[in-house]
Order: sequence, then C-alpha cells, then structure tokens
Amino acid sequence: MNAISHLLAPRSVAVVGASTDPAKTAGKPVHFLRKHGFTGEIFPVNPRVETIDGLRCYPSIAALPKAPHVGLVLLGAERAITAVRELAELGTKAAIVLASGYAEVGGDGHRRQADLIAAAGSMRLLGPNTIGLVNVTDRIPLSASGALDMDDFAAGPIAFVSQSGGILGSMLSRASGRGIGLSKLISTSNEADLEVADFVDHLVDDPATSVIALYIESIRDADRFRRAALKAAAAGKPIVAYKIGRSEAGAQAAVSHTGALAGSDKTYDAFFRQVGVIRAENFSDLLDIPLTLSKGRKLRGKRVAILTSTGGAGTLVSDNLGLYGFETPPPDAVTAARLRALQTGDQAVLDRNPIDVTLAGLQPELLRGAIEALLDSPTYDALTIIVGSSGVANPELMAGAIAPCLPKSDKPVLAYVSPHAPQAAALLTSHDVPAFSAPESCAVALDGLRRVAQWQAPLSGAKQDQISPPADLAIGSLDEAQANALFAHFGVPCARVRVVASAAEAEAAARELGGRVALKLLSKEITHKSDVGGVIVNVTPETMQDDLKRMTADVTVKTGIKPSRFLVQEMVSGGTELILGFKRDPLGAVILLGAGGTATEIFKDTAMRLLPAGGTLSTVEALELARELKSWPLLDGYRGRPKADVDALAAAIVAFSGMVASLGERLVEAEINPIFVLPQGRGARAADGVVVLQS
Amino acid sequence: MNAISHLLAPRSVAVVGASTDPAKTAGKPVHFLRKHGFTGEIFPVNPRVETIDGLRCYPSIAALPKAPHVGLVLLGAERAITAVRELAELGTKAAIVLASGYAEVGGDGHRRQADLIAAAGSMRLLGPNTIGLVNVTDRIPLSASGALDMDDFAAGPIAFVSQSGGILGSMLSRASGRGIGLSKLISTSNEADLEVADFVDHLVDDPATSVIALYIESIRDADRFRRAALKAAAAGKPIVAYKIGRSEAGAQAAVSHTGALAGSDKTYDAFFRQVGVIRAENFSDLLDIPLTLSKGRKLRGKRVAILTSTGGAGTLVSDNLGLYGFETPPPDAVTAARLRALQTGDQAVLDRNPIDVTLAGLQPELLRGAIEALLDSPTYDALTIIVGSSGVANPELMAGAIAPCLPKSDKPVLAYVSPHAPQAAALLTSHDVPAFSAPESCAVALDGLRRVAQWQAPLSGAKQDQISPPADLAIGSLDEAQANALFAHFGVPCARVRVVASAAEAEAAARELGGRVALKLLSKEITHKSDVGGVIVNVTPETMQDDLKRMTADVTVKTGIKPSRFLVQEMVSGGTELILGFKRDPLGAVILLGAGGTATEIFKDTAMRLLPAGGTLSTVEALELARELKSWPLLDGYRGRPKADVDALAAAIVAFSGMVASLGERLVEAEINPIFVLPQGRGARAADGVVVLQS
Repeated sequence: MNAISHLLAPRSVAVVGASTDPAKTAGKPVHFLRKHGFTGEIFPVNPRVETIDGLRCYPSIAALPKAPHVGLVLLGAERAITAVRELAELGTKAAIVLASGYAEVGGDGHRRQADLIAAAGSMRLLGPNTIGLVNVTDRIPLSASGALDMDDFAAGPIAFVSQSGGILGSMLSRASGRGIGLSKLISTSNEADLEVADFVDHLVDDPATSVIALYIESIRDADRFRRAALKAAAAGKPIVAYKIGRSEAGAQAAVSHTGALAGSDKTYDAFFRQVGVIRAENFSDLLDIPLTLSKGRKLRGKRVAILTSTGGAGTLVSDNLGLYGFETPPPDAVTAARLRALQTGDQAVLDRNPIDVTLAGLQPELLRGAIEALLDSPTYDALTIIVGSSGVANPELMAGAIAPCLPKSDKPVLAYVSPHAPQAAALLTSHDVPAFSAPESCAVALDGLRRVAQWQAPLSGAKQDQISPPADLAIGSLDEAQANALFAHFGVPCARVRVVASAAEAEAAARELGGRVALKLLSKEITHKSDVGGVIVNVTPETMQDDLKRMTADVTVKTGIKPSRFLVQEMVSGGTELILGFKRDPLGAVILLGAGGTATEIFKDTAMRLLPAGGTLSTVEALELARELKSWPLLDGYRGRPKADVDALAAAIVAFSGMVASLGERLVEAEINPIFVLPQGRGARAADGVVVLQS
Repeated sequence: MNAISHLLAPRSVAVVGASTDPAKTAGKPVHFLRKHGFTGEIFPVNPRVETIDGLRCYPSIAALPKAPHVGLVLLGAERAITAVRELAELGTKAAIVLASGYAEVGGDGHRRQADLIAAAGSMRLLGPNTIGLVNVTDRIPLSASGALDMDDFAAGPIAFVSQSGGILGSMLSRASGRGIGLSKLISTSNEADLEVADFVDHLVDDPATSVIALYIESIRDADRFRRAALKAAAAGKPIVAYKIGRSEAGAQAAVSHTGALAGSDKTYDAFFRQVGVIRAENFSDLLDIPLTLSKGRKLRGKRVAILTSTGGAGTLVSDNLGLYGFETPPPDAVTAARLRALQTGDQAVLDRNPIDVTLAGLQPELLRGAIEALLDSPTYDALTIIVGSSGVANPELMAGAIAPCLPKSDKPVLAYVSPHAPQAAALLTSHDVPAFSAPESCAVALDGLRRVAQWQAPLSGAKQDQISPPADLAIGSLDEAQANALFAHFGVPCARVRVVASAAEAEAAARELGGRVALKLLSKEITHKSDVGGVIVNVTPETMQDDLKRMTADVTVKTGIKPSRFLVQEMVSGGTELILGFKRDPLGAVILLGAGGTATEIFKDTAMRLLPAGGTLSTVEALELARELKSWPLLDGYRGRPKADVDALAAAIVAFSGMVASLGERLVEAEINPIFVLPQGRGARAADGVVVLQS
C-alpha cells in the first residue's frame, strides 16, 4: 500500500487539536468518525483534556502509542507546521491540514506554505486549506464538512476530487439528496503536495470507482494531469470536470482562493478535449453526467424514444435533445404495432414520438410493455421516460415499471421528472435510472455518453523525429526573411523568397521567381511596413527597378531610415487564408489555428491544441484542429469552391508544432499570418510571419 | 366583468361529466374545488348519480338551476361539443374543455374543433385539450391536474400561462416545493378561442399579478400578442417566456402536440426582444427570473457583492456572474472598514469579494452587520448571499439574518444554496430572498432584472408616411434593372444604372456614369449571370463596346440565348458589404440584415426584426439591427478603419422595410445582396438584388 492508499483508507487516525465540542470545527472530525462507524483506531491529541467522546486523548503527538496512518491536523496555520513536522518524525504516512492562512492569502502565507512542505519531508500532505476527504466506500470521514451531519449517504461508483472544500460538502449532500452513490470525495485545495492528478491516478486503480468527477480551479502540472487522464481513459473510467475561471471575475477569484496561476480557459477547453476529459458546462452536469456514465450502459447512436403520459413535458425533452443533435423518430411498424396492442381504448397516440400513453396509460403492465417494446426496437438507441404529476402522489409507479426491464437491454434509460417530485426521482436513480429535474439534463447526460463513446486517444507526434534548431539561430525579433528561413528549416512550406540589396538584384530575383512578385522592405526597426510604403504587390520584372527605387524614397521620407535590404516573394493567390500561431500558456505550449483576415477576431474563429511537453501534434490532431474552425466549410468545398489541400495544411501544422517543440523555451513568439491553403494537390504556403527568440 | 374575469373567478361552476371517483380524471375537479375551499356554487352534471361528494348532481345541463359562470366539460371529444352547445344556449359565460382528440390529432380532429367553436357561439372557450386553470389568488382550481393533490400552495404575484397542460402542473408543484407564490395558472392548449395574448392582456389588469410567465409552443396571432406585451411593459409587469421549438425535433413535436404552425425560432427570438419579453433559455429560468422580478427590487448597475462562508461556492457564483458581464469588485475603503470591525479574529478575509466570513462568521449579528454594510455600500448594485453546508442543519440562520435588512435597501438580494438544503432555500424565498440551487441561476436572475431595466419600447415607423407602390408594378421575378428601380422608388439608395440595348448606348452610359463601371447581362431566363460570362467589372468607356460584344458572344454560346439588354452600373468600392433581405414567417414579415460574402452563412452573422402588421422599422430599430451583427465592429471603425455611414445604412433599412410594408402580400421575395455601406458621409448603395412579386 502506498501513502495515498493509507491516506484514503487508514486503519489509524490521529486527530491533532481535537475539541470536545462537536459544534466546533475542531470537534467535528472525531464526532464524524464515530458517527459514521470508522472501525480503526482514533487518537485525539489535545493537552487540555483527558478524553473526547469516551476516547483516550493524548497530550502531544510525541505521546501517541504509535505512528498513525493519517494525522488530521486541526490547528491554526503556524502550529500546524510544528504538528506536521512531529507527525513526519513519528513516521506517519500522510497528514491532512485544514487550516487556512497559507499561499491562498498571499504575502506571508507563501512562506508558511513553504515551511509546511519542508516540515512534511517525505510524508505526504493533503491541503492545506482543505476540508479533508470522505471515503464513502469504507465509511471513513476525515473531514470537518458540515455535510457529514447527515445520518447516512449512499456508497456508489462516482469519485469526486475537488480543489474547493466547500464544493465537497455540496456534492456530498446533493448526491445524497438525489440517491446518488459516491465512492471517495477528496478536497485538494492548496495542493502543497498531493494534487488532483495524483488522486485521479490512484482512483483509476480503485475497484470501487468507475467514474471520476473533478472540480477544477487550476491544473498545476498539465503533463502529470495528462498522464493520469489518459490512464483513466485507457481503463475505461471516464473523467468529468467542471472548471471555473471561465470569466475574468471567476479566474481572479479562483486565483485568490487557492493561490494558483490560472491558464486561459480556452486552453483548458482544448486540453480537456485532447485528453478525453468531458467538461461539465453547468454545475449540475458535474453530478448528472457521472451519474449517467456510472450506469455502464451503451449509447450506439443518436435516436431517442421518449415515453410520456404528459404531452408538454415530452415535447420539452424532445426539443432539448434536438438542440444536442439527437433525433426522436417515430416508432417503426413492428414497434408501433406492439405499442398499439397495449392500448386501452382512449386517446393515446402511440405511433408518434414522444410516445404518449396519456394518464390512462399509467398502469404498471402497460408501462412495462411499452418500455420493453421501445428497448427492443431497432429504431432507438436510448429511452427517456417522463414522470408526470402522478409522480407526486405515486412515486413508486415508474421505478417499479422500469426496474424489471433494465436487465434485458444495455441501452441507456433516463428519466425526466416534470413536477417537483424528489422522492420519485431518488427512487428511479437508486433503481439505476438516472432521473433529472431539468429537461436540459437529459440531453447533457446522453451527450456525455456519446462523447465517451466517440473519444479516441490522441496519437501524438513522436518525440524522436524532431528536427534540431539551425546552428545559426538568431536571437530577438527576426525579420521576415529570417522567419521564413526558420519556418522552412522545420518543414513548413513557404512562399519562395529572395533577399536583395539593389534594384538590379531585385529584377533578377523577380525573373527567377517568375510571374508577378511582391516586394517587401526588410527591416527590424520598421514594424508596420505597409503603412510606410514598404510593401508593393503584383510587381513584374519590368517595373521592379522603378518600384524598388520608389519604395526606397517613400520609406526614407516617412521613417527617416533608408532601407538597404528587400524581400522579393512569389505571389500566392487562389487559396484560403489562415493564421497559424503559438502561445505559451501556464498549461504549456499552445498551437492556434485561426480564420484569416478579420474573421479570427470578429467571429472568434480559432481552434487550439496544447502540446504535450516536448512533443508535437499528430497529423490526425492537426486535421481535427482545422475541422474545428467555424470556417472549415471554406476549406471543404463550400458552395462549389474547389476543396483546399487540407493534407498540406495538416503537414504545415505538424511541422510548425515540431518547430515549437524543438525550440522549447527559446521560442517567445511565432505566428504565420497568412498561410495560404491552395486547392487540393497544390499545397500550402506561409506568406508572412513573426518570430521572436530568446537565448 | 368580462368573460375572462368570470372564467378566472367564477361564483358558480358546472362540472359536466363529473365522476364520483376522485381517482379518475373526471372525479378530480369537484374534489379539488372542495379540497381547496372554493366558496361558490358547484353543479356536478352526471345522469347516472344523485350526488357527488355530498353535492346534488344534475342529470343534464338543461336541468341546471341557472346558467353557471363556467362550465368545466370533462366529456370525450364528440360529447363535449354537445355539452358546449347546451352551455352556450343556457347563457354560460365560458367553458373549459379538457378532452383531447381535436386539432392536435390532425385529420378528423380539425373538423371536431371547428364544430366545437361553432357550438360555443359567443360563449368564450378555454381549450380544448387543456388541463384547465388554477386561480391561486382566490383558491379556485378549475383543473384535473394531479399537482392539485398537494394540500396547499402559496399565493403570490406570478401568473403563468401555458400552451401545455402538463407544464401547468409541473410549475404549480415546482413553485410550491420552493415556496414561490403564484397568482393564476392557465393552460390554453389548442386555443380554439382564447389564446395566450388574451390572458396576458387580462393579467396586466389583475392586481394580484406583477409578473407574467409564459410557456409557448407557437404564437397564433403575433400582432395581438404584441399589443398585449407592450401593454404589460407599459404597466411595468414584465413577461418572461420559455419557448420550445428551438430544435427541428422540438418544433415538430410542438406542432403535433397542439396543432399549431410554428414560426422560425430565430424569429421568435427577435420578436420577443422587440416587444420586451424576456426569453428564458433554460426551463428552470421560467421560475427563477419571474421570482426575482416579482420582488420589485431595482438593479442600477452591474457590480455584485458576494457574501459567503465557503470560498468555493463564492467563486463558483462569481465566475458565473462574470460570464454574464457582471462585476465583483472588492469593497471600498469605508465598507472594508465596516466589515473588518465585525471580524472575530480568525482567518476571514473581509476586504475581498467574495467576502468570506468563514464558518466562524456564521453568527446572526455578524451576518446582519455584513449584509447592511454591503447594501449600504456605493460599490455594489446587488448582493448575493451564499448558504453553505450549515444550511442543512441550520436552515433558519440566513433567512433570519437577512430579513431585517431588506426594508433598508431596494437593491436586489439573492441567495445561492450550495448544499442540498431545500428547507433553507424555501425559507429564504418565502422571506423575499430568491434562493437558487444552481449557481448559473444567480446570473440569469440578475440578467433578467437588467434586461427589464434596459428595455425600451420600440418607436416603430409611422404607418401613414408609407410610399405607395409604383403604378406599373411588374409581377413575377424582376430583372436587376426592375429590382433596382423598385428599391429606388421606395427610397433605398442604389448604385446608378443605365439599361442599354447596344454597344453604342453602353459606351454612352459608361461615359455618363463616369470612371469604371460594371456591365451586366439583363435577363429573366438566365439566373447565374457570372457563370455564363454575363458580368464584367471595371469596364472603361474605351473598352465598353468590345466588352459588350464579347459578352454577347460568350452568353450566346453558353446558353443558346442571344442577350439583347444590358445593365451599365457604377462601380462601388471601399465600403463594407452587407445583405439586406426579407422573409415571410408564420409570425409575420421579417427584415434580415447579414454580413456580406460568406460570413452570413459560415458565421451565422444575421440579425432580424419582425415588422408590425403594415408598419415599418424605426431608425432606432434599424440601428439596433446593425449593432446586433457580430461584424458590427467592421462598421464601427475596427482597427483604424474609417467608420461606415451607419446613418445611411439605417435609412436604407427603414426604406426597405417601408417597401415590404407597402407591398404587403404582393411581395414574395426581396433581397439586396450586396448593399455597400461607404465611409461616413458617403452613403450606402444597393448593388444587386432580387425581387419576386405576385398579384
């Protein structure tokens, strides 16, 4: 057993700073351990009392009869440091520190947190500023959360790891109120040592856990998280994450709350998709999606049957399913006949979907017959059952009708409870039918199943094939010719260029490149070249000498600098313009692709991928990136246009990502704007770019 | 008292087809009337029994001792028609028909519904296919909804009108479960006679109602609805609507459910905005927003204080507020000092926002002091209070602390309940603090307050100033010259054009128009002019004759038709391209504005307005339309571009809407694509367009 195993399932716990008053925070943990039936040893530590709740109380950590598996430290921030040192010296496996006043408060808190880490040495640490953890599987609460005042909570397959302590209590009580069973709840908070990724890694191996829900404020180590997430995916244990910091206000609050440095929310979005983590958009989704995934049922398509006794609610669910791309086709002939055979002679319309049995159809046999017919039907991939107002007075009816049908099919079965009928909902949920009180949740839950089914592990580019940086790598802001050369070095296809210093050289270059060319000023001092007359397009060899002289004169007048170097570049036309860029995010290096011109900004048409540390993007990922653009149809034969050479684009993206990986921290800024993607078979061309390097 | 008043608050009710068995649908209405204390006269009608629940039962409608105010008809579809005729003959004010089997089932149902309408004559009708209505204010349930099995429900200021019967029961029980008081609930369903607009109009005058919530499947008469909505807005009674049919699946289900013809969901969106109806995006918003609006508190800005005892939940709410553009600034110095003075010496951090009093701060006096300080603070426009896990064990704490503070300020105060603590939430709500269990709801509710505060009644264009159609109006598909002339007739600025029939005329026209021009084929037969060589741009007078001859030859070869008429058009350049169009929606005539080129489709960059019957858009509305475009920045001086002449654009939109209003049903299709908006002071120019007219 490793330290995390001991932390989650200790056989002995020292509660340092325990109080005799269970109303106080320091009095709760011992009280909860006993209330919820912890069967291991409890060692309260408090020099001022003899016993707590009948347990012998120890005056100090040094006085403990043995090293406990876990030390639960309830002392204030400064005294907790001493306690942690003493626990470590004794040989304790792990300590949990509840006190706040560390990195999250800034200033002196950072020093305190460093001292705490030093004091722990090789002993593992949960927190500080945590509410602790609850091992529901084994009924071990190591927490002061008020939610543990509940008399009982259901054990089940959903683990929950949270960077907020309060949210742990919220999830525990919400799950309990809905009849949803949990396995482990852990609040990591400041993550001075153990972080979310450590627990994800551990929970993948926990037989009691089949789905992992995360409440994330900020991921500290993206590569560690990536490894844990990919391990979970490989083990078939989906991860669902709710991440705050989507707005500026929230990002700031999150930073001050746990003292972490937040990455861009859009980067998280891309990162989660890359590593197969399903992002919960609404907070309630963080229970609804794991609940649905935990049932282990399979969604093989997008066609959903809706069985209802109340037309309006059926339509409501159908509409929401439609927004998520699900379909609600009418029953096939065989199924319709089976449904009609059940009919009792009233106005029920059983050959449409929603399938409305009306109030008269609310009889267990009829419902069971209808459910079996719908689950058998090849027309449907899933079933949603609507509980109407009858669910208030008769909460058992629907759960009783569905339960016997479930073993005969592995299609997903969900329920929407239209009235306020929490008892009916909880009964359904505890009978393995996830029940929701929001019509949107049915769609979100099925979407979660679909995303798990469709996700494929990324085939990231191999690290060994990387091209080394050129030996003569310049430092600082590169001019266009240098940037072009660097892109070309790493295999990005570029428009052909010649650097020239005289009108005669320029004419020769134009003739060599053939046809019309662009003439551009080359200068590190002058940044906005077009504004000072430093760009002329569609130049022919015949007019080149005159054009160069005119540019020299114009630029000299406007900037006071006489240009001495120029770029002659082949003209690229007939392609689709895109922007290919790089940014360094707190999560890591990010590759961005955007629509060209004003569309990137005006229509926010960008897509991104986080690079694994030192790795590149695969061709598959590069193609996915392009397909994520809203303007993808423009590359894909929109309205009779020729299809663009997306293979060449993908190769360019992979090459660009190789440059980013190879240059590592030396790369400060890099952007190709524009890169032209020509019609199929004709390739792609980088036409202008910016690179900034540091040593 | 009009018929709707009698319908909602009858003093006498005949229940036709009443059953002695309260478990049956037909047995419920009498049972509910008695259970909930209806004090008027009840006349059950049933030839087979003597009494129902101790009430004398009448063998027929003819045998009733007098004409009741309301006849509640529980018979099947065919027999209900006879009953309605007899009730009308007796002089009944209004009938409610619960039976289904009318227009919503199609086929024969349409005939039955027509018969029902004829049978009612001048008697008003609610339904058919309705679950009835509940007047909560006066405790009069005229319904068979199972939700009325509840023992009690709170009266309050929120009215609810639903086109679905099942949703009525859902709202009644959900409101009750949360301590939310309602005034009237009405299910209009098939709307054979009375429709949603009639009840909105009535409820504006109901002193017990201050907010109106609507569940809409389809609006039958947009102008009637518009009048009612504007009346409500003028009376300061906000309307909140949830509309289904957002997805194709839902739209179809809604149509089959109530037999209505659904308009485009985007048109509804625009329509609701125009008439000041707040659209609820999620179903839960349909209670949350009205609840918040019903408190009558004023939101004057976007700065929100968050008071919490649990950091995580505060951050969660803060993040969601940020997504809606709210701000959560730290307290000002005075407020921070007041907060610090309350402090009890622990780790609470009171000078940030969320303001975290921590668990130690959960004392009534401290909370009250903090709430007062935050409501007094000029830094905040609203207050959101977080209820943490303490709300489970101590549900009264927060409601008790807030209640005495509320009368001292009219700023909005909301609560987010983080754990599963329905009792704490209901207590807060009944103490006038709307309490939500979803963090998103806090932002949605405040957004609802903001939208009500910001909405301004539209200044629609006057109807009397309309330009009459030209006397020689053509029929069918117009050619470009005709379309151009029609646009110009109505005052839309157009690029100058000349129609020519020979090379010489074309050259003369080019000289007259000056500079470079476009030469276009004029033909009704040939639609894709550019594909057959029928468009040449940048033509000079010098080359015009040759160009025309070449076009004639090219088009003749490619189409077999020798062109005889051409358009010479001034070239427009340097502007921003837009599309200005019209479509006829089931709701009415719609004016659409879209970004030019591929952006309209690719980036879905369109905005629209529904015209009032026979009316035009005002200049203010036209400007709003343009500002709604995602690409508005391109018109507004994006990145140093010159600002576009948006006044000229607005005038063109108003003129175009005048054309639509003036032509009425004769206009089948109209689109200007593109219209160029030139830099400020230089106007706008329609450059090409399509018009189809019918007689």
